[in-house]
Amino acid sequence: MKRSDRLVSLMNYFWENPREHTALPVFSERYGAAKSSVSEDLDIIDRVMRHEGIGYLQTLPGASGGVRFIPEFSQENSKVFIRELCDMLEDPERILPGGYLYMSDMLGNPKMVSRIGRVLASTFADEQIDVVVTVATKGIPLAYAVASVLNVPVVIVRRDPRVTEGSSVSINYVSGSSRKIQTMVLPKRSLQEGANVCIIDDFMKAGGTINGMISLLNEFNANVSAVGVLAEADDEEDERVVDKYKSLVKITNVDGKNQQITVAPGNALD
Amino acid sequence: MKRSDRLVSLMNYFWENPREHTALPVFSERYGAAKSSVSEDLDIIDRVMRHEGIGYLQTLPGASGGVRFIPEFSQENSKVFIRELCDMLEDPERILPGGYLYMSDMLGNPKMVSRIGRVLASTFADEQIDVVVTVATKGIPLAYAVASVLNVPVVIVRRDPRVTEGSSVSINYVSGSSRKIQTMVLPKRSLQEGANVCIIDDFMKAGGTINGMISLLNEFNANVSAVGVLAEADDEEDERVVDKYKSLVKITNVDGKNQQITVAPGNALD
Repeated sequence: MKRSDRLVSLMNYFWENPREHTALPVFSERYGAAKSSVSEDLDIIDRVMRHEGIGYLQTLPGASGGVRFIPEFSQENSKVFIRELCDMLEDPERILPGGYLYMSDMLGNPKMVSRIGRVLASTFADEQIDVVVTVATKGIPLAYAVASVLNVPVVIVRRDPRVTEGSSVSINYVSGSSRKIQTMVLPKRSLQEGANVCIIDDFMKAGGTINGMISLLNEFNANVSAVGVLAEADDEEDERVVDKYKSLVKITNVDGKNQQITVAPGNALD
Repeated sequence: MKRSDRLVSLMNYFWENPREHTALPVFSERYGAAKSSVSEDLDIIDRVMRHEGIGYLQTLPGASGGVRFIPEFSQENSKVFIRELCDMLEDPERILPGGYLYMSDMLGNPKMVSRIGRVLASTFADEQIDVVVTVATKGIPLAYAVASVLNVPVVIVRRDPRVTEGSSVSINYVSGSSRKIQTMVLPKRSLQEGANVCIIDDFMKAGGTINGMISLLNEFNANVSAVGVLAEADDEEDERVVDKYKSLVKITNVDGKNQQITVAPGNALD
């Protein structure tokens, strides 16, 4: 197979199998090409990817000399994207009763969700993560976007127990902002003891929901390695119950009366 | 820029922007390459993609001579994948009380979800689809997987109205299998009048939930162009209230007593 064909085929493979370790001989054999030619292909791919700031190929040592594709948004790309998010969110038409912001259009856009996922996943690149956990409903697409970059499964905490999941563990917690008692449920079968977990959600106000998830995950002896949210609201900062987290944007002010919203970059790139 | 570098860059672009129409001059300019060279690049990409059965480049006529990447699983790839799904689902450990099957591990695997989405999206390749609609919770990842291939937004029908979405339309419907009255809600703002909709869900038994979604979508004068589910159960076929749909697999028998499950390919490839 010619180099040009191999490059296209390799790119399909890497995009379909992010973070999957593959031994070089697998490619040599598949393409009927010398190991040195495949190495050159990989060098080209790595160089262009780094140049475009969308990831890189990680070479792994050992007898078989493996490689894997790490999709990663560069700081520069992330900065531009987060600035775009801020601008979109500052549209006064997003103001809903109660000081909430309408974000469903953004969370409903698969391309945007996938970018948010890649930026968040990039900030956790150095953490050991076995599984992404979120709570139904709005965090789900973001959790999948992060998980597909990290190549790990997603586990969804529910607010209502369902018959179709077998036995489960549940906890009650106090919602940070509404101060109401709520329930969270996770099927026993869905999470292994001692897993390294990344919690993802769309929005964090006082942090009660995320804190609830942490308590529930404690029941599984899970280790919470990372917490990531799309947006945080900082109007109640002194009441926040979660301290270690990454946010892409920070909603600093929602003024319904004067139809003004102020959104700044979050702490993800700090 | 050399051909090899251009190919890698183009592949990044196509994988990041499925179904997005791009004029050829955009590429010529970006790479400082003649239009004829870019055309040759695209021919190579198209040929390899078709050969691997994962999609193709669609050339669009007109002055600017555009192109777009249509990710599509070939019949052959789809068949192999559906066969794998059947084998996975026939594991007797999946049997839950009440004749349900545990599928959360499969639905929690982003790579598997993305494949399911690509196979489903391939079966709707000829339909006009503006938006993918699903109902919380388990259909959500599949809906995003289909939507990202089709490059359209996702709208999530909820079972509980939420304060953060503004005014909404709700309906009551009778669940097909449990015969209980349930509620579905869709924020007014989330769907345009007359949209062409593809409904996606993880599981269909009698079809009551999907029928409920169709009724709700009628309130928006939406046109349901396609209905796709991962799995259908056919033990109550004569009671089914939805007739036009595509399923990847069909669970024909769940025998808790003898710990046996029988799963066959659904009608997606018919």
